[in-house]
Amino acid sequence: MSQNTPLRSPITESSASPHQQLFQKFSTVRKHTEDICAPLEIEDYGIQTMPDVSPPKWHLAHTSWFFETFLLKPFQKNYHEYHPQFAQLFNSYYNTVGSYHPRPQRGLLSRPTVEEVYLYRHYINEQMEKLIFKAEEKYWGEIFSRTILGINHEQQHQELMLTDIKHIFATNPLRPQYRNLLHKDSHSTEQQWLSYRGGLVSVGHNSTSATDDFSYDNEGPKHQTYINEFLLSSRLVTNGEMLSFIEDGGYGDARLWLSDAWKIVCENKWTSPLYWEKKDADCWHMTLGGMRKLDLNAPVCHVSFYEADAFARWAGRRLPTEAEWETAASAEPIKGNLRESGYLQPVSLHQGSDSDRLQQIYGDVWEWTQSPYCAYPGYRHENSAFGDFSGEYNGKFMSNQMVLRGGSCLTPEDHIRSTYRNFFYPADRWQMSGFRLAKDA
Amino acid sequence: MSQNTPLRSPITESSASPHQQLFQKFSTVRKHTEDICAPLEIEDYGIQTMPDVSPPKWHLAHTSWFFETFLLKPFQKNYHEYHPQFAQLFNSYYNTVGSYHPRPQRGLLSRPTVEEVYLYRHYINEQMEKLIFKAEEKYWGEIFSRTILGINHEQQHQELMLTDIKHIFATNPLRPQYRNLLHKDSHSTEQQWLSYRGGLVSVGHNSTSATDDFSYDNEGPKHQTYINEFLLSSRLVTNGEMLSFIEDGGYGDARLWLSDAWKIVCENKWTSPLYWEKKDADCWHMTLGGMRKLDLNAPVCHVSFYEADAFARWAGRRLPTEAEWETAASAEPIKGNLRESGYLQPVSLHQGSDSDRLQQIYGDVWEWTQSPYCAYPGYRHENSAFGDFSGEYNGKFMSNQMVLRGGSCLTPEDHIRSTYRNFFYPADRWQMSGFRLAKDA
Amino acid sequence: MSQNTPLRSPITESSASPHQQLFQKFSTVRKHTEDICAPLEIEDYGIQTMPDVSPPKWHLAHTSWFFETFLLKPFQKNYHEYHPQFAQLFNSYYNTVGSYHPRPQRGLLSRPTVEEVYLYRHYINEQMEKLIFKAEEKYWGEIFSRTILGINHEQQHQELMLTDIKHIFATNPLRPQYRNLLHKDSHSTEQQWLSYRGGLVSVGHNSTSATDDFSYDNEGPKHQTYINEFLLSSRLVTNGEMLSFIEDGGYGDARLWLSDAWKIVCENKWTSPLYWEKKDADCWHMTLGGMRKLDLNAPVCHVSFYEADAFARWAGRRLPTEAEWETAASAEPIKGNLRESGYLQPVSLHQGSDSDRLQQIYGDVWEWTQSPYCAYPGYRHENSAFGDFSGEYNGKFMSNQMVLRGGSCLTPEDHIRSTYRNFFYPADRWQMSGFRLAKDA
Amino acid sequence: MSQNTPLRSPITESSASPHQQLFQKFSTVRKHTEDICAPLEIEDYGIQTMPDVSPPKWHLAHTSWFFETFLLKPFQKNYHEYHPQFAQLFNSYYNTVGSYHPRPQRGLLSRPTVEEVYLYRHYINEQMEKLIFKAEEKYWGEIFSRTILGINHEQQHQELMLTDIKHIFATNPLRPQYRNLLHKDSHSTEQQWLSYRGGLVSVGHNSTSATDDFSYDNEGPKHQTYINEFLLSSRLVTNGEMLSFIEDGGYGDARLWLSDAWKIVCENKWTSPLYWEKKDADCWHMTLGGMRKLDLNAPVCHVSFYEADAFARWAGRRLPTEAEWETAASAEPIKGNLRESGYLQPVSLHQGSDSDRLQQIYGDVWEWTQSPYCAYPGYRHENSAFGDFSGEYNGKFMSNQMVLRGGSCLTPEDHIRSTYRNFFYPADRWQMSGFRLAKDA
Repeated sequence: MSQNTPLRSPITESSASPHQQLFQKFSTVRKHTEDICAPLEIEDYGIQTMPDVSPPKWHLAHTSWFFETFLLKPFQKNYHEYHPQFAQLFNSYYNTVGSYHPRPQRGLLSRPTVEEVYLYRHYINEQMEKLIFKAEEKYWGEIFSRTILGINHEQQHQELMLTDIKHIFATNPLRPQYRNLLHKDSHSTEQQWLSYRGGLVSVGHNSTSATDDFSYDNEGPKHQTYINEFLLSSRLVTNGEMLSFIEDGGYGDARLWLSDAWKIVCENKWTSPLYWEKKDADCWHMTLGGMRKLDLNAPVCHVSFYEADAFARWAGRRLPTEAEWETAASAEPIKGNLRESGYLQPVSLHQGSDSDRLQQIYGDVWEWTQSPYCAYPGYRHENSAFGDFSGEYNGKFMSNQMVLRGGSCLTPEDHIRSTYRNFFYPADRWQMSGFRLAKDA
Repeated sequence: MSQNTPLRSPITESSASPHQQLFQKFSTVRKHTEDICAPLEIEDYGIQTMPDVSPPKWHLAHTSWFFETFLLKPFQKNYHEYHPQFAQLFNSYYNTVGSYHPRPQRGLLSRPTVEEVYLYRHYINEQMEKLIFKAEEKYWGEIFSRTILGINHEQQHQELMLTDIKHIFATNPLRPQYRNLLHKDSHSTEQQWLSYRGGLVSVGHNSTSATDDFSYDNEGPKHQTYINEFLLSSRLVTNGEMLSFIEDGGYGDARLWLSDAWKIVCENKWTSPLYWEKKDADCWHMTLGGMRKLDLNAPVCHVSFYEADAFARWAGRRLPTEAEWETAASAEPIKGNLRESGYLQPVSLHQGSDSDRLQQIYGDVWEWTQSPYCAYPGYRHENSAFGDFSGEYNGKFMSNQMVLRGGSCLTPEDHIRSTYRNFFYPADRWQMSGFRLAKDA
Repeated sequence: MSQNTPLRSPITESSASPHQQLFQKFSTVRKHTEDICAPLEIEDYGIQTMPDVSPPKWHLAHTSWFFETFLLKPFQKNYHEYHPQFAQLFNSYYNTVGSYHPRPQRGLLSRPTVEEVYLYRHYINEQMEKLIFKAEEKYWGEIFSRTILGINHEQQHQELMLTDIKHIFATNPLRPQYRNLLHKDSHSTEQQWLSYRGGLVSVGHNSTSATDDFSYDNEGPKHQTYINEFLLSSRLVTNGEMLSFIEDGGYGDARLWLSDAWKIVCENKWTSPLYWEKKDADCWHMTLGGMRKLDLNAPVCHVSFYEADAFARWAGRRLPTEAEWETAASAEPIKGNLRESGYLQPVSLHQGSDSDRLQQIYGDVWEWTQSPYCAYPGYRHENSAFGDFSGEYNGKFMSNQMVLRGGSCLTPEDHIRSTYRNFFYPADRWQMSGFRLAKDA
Repeated sequence: MSQNTPLRSPITESSASPHQQLFQKFSTVRKHTEDICAPLEIEDYGIQTMPDVSPPKWHLAHTSWFFETFLLKPFQKNYHEYHPQFAQLFNSYYNTVGSYHPRPQRGLLSRPTVEEVYLYRHYINEQMEKLIFKAEEKYWGEIFSRTILGINHEQQHQELMLTDIKHIFATNPLRPQYRNLLHKDSHSTEQQWLSYRGGLVSVGHNSTSATDDFSYDNEGPKHQTYINEFLLSSRLVTNGEMLSFIEDGGYGDARLWLSDAWKIVCENKWTSPLYWEKKDADCWHMTLGGMRKLDLNAPVCHVSFYEADAFARWAGRRLPTEAEWETAASAEPIKGNLRESGYLQPVSLHQGSDSDRLQQIYGDVWEWTQSPYCAYPGYRHENSAFGDFSGEYNGKFMSNQMVLRGGSCLTPEDHIRSTYRNFFYPADRWQMSGFRLAKDA
């Protein structure tokens, strides 16, 4: 996996022109998407193992479609659409730009072939290069901010591609390996409770597409909120702790589960996190490196909000709210087991890690909070800073989902920040989702 | 429908003993449940028209089962269980007290007959009378608070019975009438925007079962929260306004709807609130009085959260948060078109109502807020004041539901208050649910 | 249960007029339907426990609707329709006479009430009396034959009512009793193989509505068919033999089952005939007399074609074809455990029954054959002797169903004959269905 | 497409040894399977567009698995299984040889790759060569007959591969072309009614695996059956005739359809055969050559039994029974538009074809009969001549399916004969299925 030049800083510091800087970011991210596919066989590109999963080929095309639809068609003079049916085939859900191929049928398309999709990508790259360097001055601002949005959009799909590939490989009885994983020694680390003051706190980030301070519309407006004093665990909940929950009968005790959760546990016969398998006496789990023995000191991953919530109740604790999480995280530097570290799975802390400090707050796993994904006060998704098309970007999903924070081992370092709000349905498990405990003071 | 003596005040003021007062409340509410059934034919008692609906017979039995399970079995000496299988048949969902008959199969039970269920009710009434008057002193506190909870529980089921009967009758092509409705003249009232200051406000109610100040566990703990200055509409959104939304193509415009909402609109082919029917040029709707022409000035009812949210977006407004709603409502007296007014449906305001004041804040329709139904800070449902059994009362439903406030024309006046949190799934429509608009200052 | 005067003979022998004779038959059968309902509570009339089951109230109304639709509306002068919506509510599936209420929603109708349905029946009875006695001569033939069809149609529904009531009561955890059953001692009888000659045989019955020789359209045309020499078991397969199949692992051995059957066995987790329950060491089953211990000598009942077929394969035998069955049965008198014997369930043979003769060929249980339900050579359902309306009577079901022969303990004696073709889907089990083994010579 | 040397004759006439002859047949058929895949992209090999469809890759592997399981494992000394998980992955449904990967999930397997599957095929080919040439004498008979069965099994899968590829391409909005189709001029041919005598006829074929007279177990035993005099149409029903049915409202007239058929027509909104599309005023349909304008003189294809049956009722005719069909066909030479003609779709008759003779009886389309797929008298699938494993070959599907006769434009000439019984569910449409009309004398 290539080591990206971080996107965060260079733009303002570099001597390159804004056009050059923008194009370099664009190119780096576009290339990285293709790097992710390097270990794949052609056959791997087309599979959709459940409606939530998209075939890698679809991700490759859809991220290109995004630039074609929101940049090239409106701003490139005499732009020649690459293929008349791609607009429909690779639209994900944007009702405002037309109809779309049904999501659960993305895996039924053998054509366009992988090669044709790469040709499409390269065509889009060439056109974008032209657009970026030859943009009319009066459109430059809009082109700039939409391109930044497209870059961030593509980074999100990079993580999705990896989790989707994992699901595709985990569904296959042969349990193929995506690639060899780096080795990391396992160490246990004591849990500490770190205390945070209550009161009025400021959360969120005022939306902007300025390069060096990008944030999504759903992170704003920045606003005040009141929180009580609280304590946060110094580290994430581990596989070993989850095993204790299992061995204590946690998955079979209705009292620990929300009503909606219990229905799902019973219907799906959940008895462990996703991808866990018992073999003889040992617990194994599927990773991007194939089947591995469970590292009991590594953060637990592939749990739903419902499992995180039930575990917390069992432990006599609770999940943090997103305001609490952000309050704690905003004081921390952005570092951790993010994509650049190259492990591609959550790992245990280093021996001798300082257990008095907040650990693993970025990277390893996305952390479920107890906060439903809602609009911040003053947010109007129809008036989003991203323009009318992007009213569909984040706002329309503000129903029935829960907020996750902090990024994972598959998230690029220049894509995460303390105000970043990820969101999934409370029963979703195929993302890199884990959790950290909190308690009242 | 009987005019209840209000439950709220008498207990502390009366010269009757606490036992007498408690038993009188108990008897009044129990009798009212049966009064609600008076207009029914025996055939009406057994029908379940969708999984959400319970047959009236089941409500009659389940509310009795509640007293038998949580009061008589634990506290009545030598208590003789009425029927060995009723524990299972009439348990709604309480996993802690045993298994239960599957909810969608409640309509498949012709036996016990209606007469047998009434005999069960009367047996429970007699036993409860004995328990209340002969309780050992050391258990009195617990018996008292559990009985109060059971009374409130039964009042909730009274409203559910009426909405379920409405659904049963509306499903029948003959559209039977539950009973004759009172006439109310229709008047239009101008909408005003009432302004409320922002800042730290106190919301919620510390849970208690003390008679004169009952509240549910989910209303507490009382706590501070920060809100911005906001404006609230002086009245509810009307049928006429909803009609404008429909005529403007609101149900067909994907941009107005949340993503989950749009899926449901399409799957269910929603084109109006529940129970509306076009006949020739006119709009009619089903009421407890049978099919009626729509009163354009009356508050719209039987809309889901999704429809309320889409309407608000169409109107350029938003729904209030529950903290905003409570801040405004806590200053108002509890009066309005509640059950005691006897209309059994939302009605227009009186001619000459003061449009500068907050109107219809209690009664008429439950008002959808934009707030997901979550635990208040410090709430622990497993440590509820109601004791271990009631950990299952409100807390386990804190997932995927939205808060509604203010009671409806089917809610008893002594059952509602400014801190009362009702909750339903965002797609639910068979309850008396409407909404009021808000906007940012 | 009333002892009917047999319908078969009296018409031609009696001195009564054809009008009197027809009306007497009509009245007797109509009254019998109501007699069947006598043990029911009002609550029992409205329940539909699965889509195949219809509420008893629906049967009462539908059989009346049949006379109203096919006799009164076309032939009664100035006929006043009883209720404008009943045409739609009580049409079962006749597309040619209009739309119909969806079958799976028959149990959602609390209105019309039971009393109202009885009033409808009585109105139809009065009108039919007038029609029969005052029919114009030129229509008499058509009126006669349609009335005979209506009478036979109602007899079919009588058996369905009883099997539906059984399903309703068996679904209820209280397992109510329909009525006390007669006692019958249990005796085992040896199985003999009776040999039948092969060659060209004549099967079927030329369709007619003449009173003394009624048959359905699907029984004709009478035609020749070629069969090989075969052997037929002298008696039905018993509960005890089915138990041996179960104990030998029959329900778990894929090799014994047809492919479609195995899917259903697995999906529905079948491990025994319908209504069987293990209690301690004993096998019990639900009957119209409530839960009873299994009589191991009585014919097995409530098995699907798939179970009969799997049993036969396990036993190294096969099911007879319908031509074989009819060849054997046509030589036998119509007697057996039919409805008139009053047992309401299959019973063992009398001690000392002649095991060298064909036993139980009529009554006890409908016998699955290996013959799919198809048109006989020359049959054209669109040209049925019953006129255009009844093209929908039997022909449209000639797909995916299997033929059963011989009637059951719930079939009236004057309704069964050797050519009678009953048909159900191969997975259906709620009818009184059992089987008899055959083998090649 | 390669022109196969016909398999039927050479074996007995050639001077080659039986081993050489068997291996040559084996090789020819195996190679042909791969030839069919030559026009595919790698991406096309893995798609499953509905549960009935299998990915081409799966067909390639499954036909190899058949030889490995039923020949190599039992008869090859020290045989080394190619891959321990292929036994489970590529078993279709044979319960007797172990569990199998769920059919609807065949499209979720990106691995093994296409290349790996070809390596598997070639390994099996090598091993089979060794087995055939070095078989011990005492096993030769069994090896010979099983190999012949495996060859015929593979030929069946060749036709399935082509119909599955067609479905995969037709599901894709890009409507790709499998390959260029040969051109055939269109001519209309008059329909004649050819008369056939009734009486006792002999049908079926005694099962055997002898090379020069292979037939499947379900074609026997040869037996007598009685048929009436009948007339058969000289040619197949055409696209043009189907269009008349459509234009006459056939798909919307409930009276024309069997009850089960009507449910399916309504649920699936059928308004034409599968793959038909209206474009402006013209009718087009999907072919292996991509989208083509409908040839009104070509036989209609991709209709279900239900559509064939409804058409026949509309036309006042009926479908033939399989005995009638076989009686007529057994007098005809095996020639027609079979796979060797290379059209890959049904075509119109040549100009000047003799309309007084039976035309198109082999090839073009499989012809639906009115006969359910049942065992012939004396057939015992558990005692099949193919040995215990093949008890699962044809017999277990004898439920709910209808017989089709005569082969199609995708069937190899040496695979079809007058006694051949194909079978599909009455609602299936993705096979090359059409029909011919019959009528009573």
